[in-house]
Amino acid sequence: MVEVRARYAETDQMGVVHHANYLVWCELGRTAFMREQGLSYRTLEAEGLRLPVARASLRFRRPARYDDLIRIRSWVRQCGSRLIEFGNAIESADDDLLLATAQITLMAVDHAHGATTIPTEIRERLAPVADPVRL
Amino acid sequence: MVEVRARYAETDQMGVVHHANYLVWCELGRTAFMREQGLSYRTLEAEGLRLPVARASLRFRRPARYDDLIRIRSWVRQCGSRLIEFGNAIESADDDLLLATAQITLMAVDHAHGATTIPTEIRERLAPVADPVRL
Amino acid sequence: MVEVRARYAETDQMGVVHHANYLVWCELGRTAFMREQGLSYRTLEAEGLRLPVARASLRFRRPARYDDLIRIRSWVRQCGSRLIEFGNAIESADDDLLLATAQITLMAVDHAHGATTIPTEIRERLAPVADPVRL
Amino acid sequence: MVEVRARYAETDQMGVVHHANYLVWCELGRTAFMREQGLSYRTLEAEGLRLPVARASLRFRRPARYDDLIRIRSWVRQCGSRLIEFGNAIESADDDLLLATAQITLMAVDHAHGATTIPTEIRERLAPVADPVRL
Repeated sequence: MVEVRARYAETDQMGVVHHANYLVWCELGRTAFMREQGLSYRTLEAEGLRLPVARASLRFRRPARYDDLIRIRSWVRQCGSRLIEFGNAIESADDDLLLATAQITLMAVDHAHGATTIPTEIRERLAPVADPVRL
Repeated sequence: MVEVRARYAETDQMGVVHHANYLVWCELGRTAFMREQGLSYRTLEAEGLRLPVARASLRFRRPARYDDLIRIRSWVRQCGSRLIEFGNAIESADDDLLLATAQITLMAVDHAHGATTIPTEIRERLAPVADPVRL
Repeated sequence: MVEVRARYAETDQMGVVHHANYLVWCELGRTAFMREQGLSYRTLEAEGLRLPVARASLRFRRPARYDDLIRIRSWVRQCGSRLIEFGNAIESADDDLLLATAQITLMAVDHAHGATTIPTEIRERLAPVADPVRL
Repeated sequence: MVEVRARYAETDQMGVVHHANYLVWCELGRTAFMREQGLSYRTLEAEGLRLPVARASLRFRRPARYDDLIRIRSWVRQCGSRLIEFGNAIESADDDLLLATAQITLMAVDHAHGATTIPTEIRERLAPVADPVRL
């Protein structure tokens, strides 16, 4: 779980946070989740594992506004040897309203961007759980 | 159809374009498509119609790299009174390879962010077509 | 003062944070500084005052890297009836190294983007101080 | 010289392009300028030369708005063995109005981010000229 304030630069002329930023927020959520599981994505990458996004699916329910405190919760939905699927809930921390949900699938690649496998000791820390919210 | 060069600022430390930028590229594709149909999204918005993204689903196939010439093709998949679904193909213009595909659903809202309907004369210009590529 | 972690999306293929993000970080620093002075930029804007950037000058000293904890300190250098100049120090929170400095001048405009003046009760909270670091 | 349309994602809730994007636009201007001089920044980087931004100074004169056609002109102001200073003019292509000017100084570094020198054959293509507009 991580909380961030919606930035002015993240808004657009509709007066709300531009939708592309939710993918960035999901990335913050995943990094925070991994840190809570004792995994540093930075270290994984330094050791040669990269996890680019292979698929993403987002549903926007309510707009986020400038200076709102945003809570991002991420969890593992599935973890195979090559793919990890994360669920993500983007909420307004002030009133607990659900703003958006997302499913993000990462693919394991090496430094040459070739397919690789996720080491077992990492997979053990990324156990799937039931979705805490409906995606 | 619109072509843009992948910007340095759009890359990340993986050495490829960060995935969140594909949502921005789809937005450029939609705007270009609407312009080809005689519609200016800027004018629509000035007249009171806003089309925020309600759902987005992306599949990333090959990475885009800095300075690549990127071609974005957008088309209408469905157009109802309140929702429009666009299909998008992101391609490398130099070698015609498909880099990513996306389905983006827009919702019609008014200036107070309340649900509204898409005027008939606009819907007539947004006729659905069969997907030119598999999404 | 505000601390943020450098985001993956903020890096570029040079493996460091792209320089344009420092302007966004300065914006976070200003907002945090104003909040500490009892001012909400969000509220000021809702009340009709806007403070777009008129001039910016940045000096980049050391690169920031992904997942670094970044500390942004902002202070007022000058505050007139129409212009406010902020100083900003961007530091690595882990080792207190100075990464970048910036001078950002804001201009008071109204909702029609016309020049206006900064109300006295706001100016009183934005008292200039000596630079804590050399810019 | 390069022309781009201001993107929706580049606007903020003030209804104009967020100021941080001008640094990205200057980057596009430099890349286009170098291409016109027969230099590919992509190739330079592949060959081991990197040119991160060391200093940037921007003056914002008129706001850019969504869908405006933006023209970016870049030129060399100074070119030494380790530093290159570019001048940049950001203009509205539709009415030739000057929107912003910027001075951007790049520093030559190698892949380990250590100071290096700019090869003579590159410097020869980056001859300084008098500023075409007042910065």
